[in-house]
Amino acid sequence: MGDDSDKRCVFCAIIGDEVEAEIVLATDDLLAFLDVRPVFKGHVLLVPRSHVETLPDLPAASRDGFLAAAQRLAMAVKDGLGAQGSFVAINNTVSQSVPHLHLHVVPRTKGDGLRGFFWPRVKYGPDEMGQYAARLRAALT
Amino acid sequence: MGDDSDKRCVFCAIIGDEVEAEIVLATDDLLAFLDVRPVFKGHVLLVPRSHVETLPDLPAASRDGFLAAAQRLAMAVKDGLGAQGSFVAINNTVSQSVPHLHLHVVPRTKGDGLRGFFWPRVKYGPDEMGQYAARLRAALT
Repeated sequence: MGDDSDKRCVFCAIIGDEVEAEIVLATDDLLAFLDVRPVFKGHVLLVPRSHVETLPDLPAASRDGFLAAAQRLAMAVKDGLGAQGSFVAINNTVSQSVPHLHLHVVPRTKGDGLRGFFWPRVKYGPDEMGQYAARLRAALT
Repeated sequence: MGDDSDKRCVFCAIIGDEVEAEIVLATDDLLAFLDVRPVFKGHVLLVPRSHVETLPDLPAASRDGFLAAAQRLAMAVKDGLGAQGSFVAINNTVSQSVPHLHLHVVPRTKGDGLRGFFWPRVKYGPDEMGQYAARLRAALT
């Protein structure tokens, strides 16, 4: 376990081998294991070994390895479990059950009944879309 | 527009400046713009300029920039729109409305009513969790 880990964090406890988990991928920087309460069976969580809370907190040096592992896991749920696709997601702060960055990889199959987050959609009022874009552009500069 | 773009693809058309969009971030390799039918207002889609279909198709050289832009956008919906957090997601193949890799960044606020994808959960039968993990480990080696 790294020096910066949080001993009260369940993912740090899995990383530190204090709590059991079904590990599917382990590298020097990352660990991936099955979610014990899966959206669908085979639902994997990918975590950095260092305790960071949200995606923006992930150090630049860890980005490539993190996304490469996500790519491998998205392929593995197809190749290993026969899924037709995958849902890859990160909840930052809101709906984030454990405050240790974790990327969900959920096997998906057409007609599996999951629509979830992507419905319903809302509509912008007149000019409102441009206003939102301007606020985001300002925050990005 | 790159040589490998698909002229029938609406995201390639946005990238090629043939279809209007509210652009919030543009780099040599990436474009981010508002989803016209947002889950919540300020919902951004991040796409690579090159037409690749799913996350595993993203070239290794593009990974760091792609995740760095996702980090910036996750911060921008907080800083620019006052969100408390964000939902970052990619649908690969199933539920993927446009077959051009796109990462959703959705502003989230506690009590916004979005539970979606993460409920309900299912349960593994006896020994089943180990079997799923073994299939994934085999696919990852």
